[in-house]
Amino acid sequence: MQKPVNLIEKFTLFSDLYSPKVVAEMNDYQFKLARIEGEFVWHSHAETDEVFIVLEGKLTIELRDRTIHLNDGEMFVVPKGVEHKPSAIEQCKVMLVEPKGTINTGETNNTDLIAQNDVWI
Amino acid sequence: MQKPVNLIEKFTLFSDLYSPKVVAEMNDYQFKLARIEGEFVWHSHAETDEVFIVLEGKLTIELRDRTIHLNDGEMFVVPKGVEHKPSAIEQCKVMLVEPKGTINTGETNNTDLIAQNDVWI
Repeated sequence: MQKPVNLIEKFTLFSDLYSPKVVAEMNDYQFKLARIEGEFVWHSHAETDEVFIVLEGKLTIELRDRTIHLNDGEMFVVPKGVEHKPSAIEQCKVMLVEPKGTINTGETNNTDLIAQNDVWI
Repeated sequence: MQKPVNLIEKFTLFSDLYSPKVVAEMNDYQFKLARIEGEFVWHSHAETDEVFIVLEGKLTIELRDRTIHLNDGEMFVVPKGVEHKPSAIEQCKVMLVEPKGTINTGETNNTDLIAQNDVWI
């Protein structure tokens, strides 16, 4: 059985950007922590929605038709198949929820931003 | 498409205890907010794990073999089929993540604590 997870404390265990780390699993879904700073790449996930929960800082999620601005304690669900580009001017701390096996860059593979999957901390 | 959700602000929209309100949906999962105070009933969910994330306050989750204590910013996954009893001495604010249709009292139906399901705020 998994232990309780202190989300902010877990961030002391890694410093790399745009490289989600798994902290918990429920059924076939994972809860991942990520540090976001600067611009990510436009991408979408054909098979799944994706949840962003901002734990610290400010996150921007550009969609093709509008831009979502999230502060601490705010969440947003990017629907499956919808192109999005996360970014942050100053580094922010985010929790992602998505099915196990979801690749951070989705269908976009012409990028060096693809992170190793299923890395637990 | 859903809008951004400010989790703590959503709590201004309800005051009842142990009555989870849905604030977001991803695929066939829901994110629910609940106010917890006093003792809930022992129950389990035969078909699913259940995630508890404490947003404000302190939450206790008794299991048959140990007790989990969670503070603000901490989460815990109760595995499917595992009996648990949430409680809080002072009211706390919690986010639950579980499949759509999950009943708050699980397999335990001899209780008046069964909440109406799928209530959005």
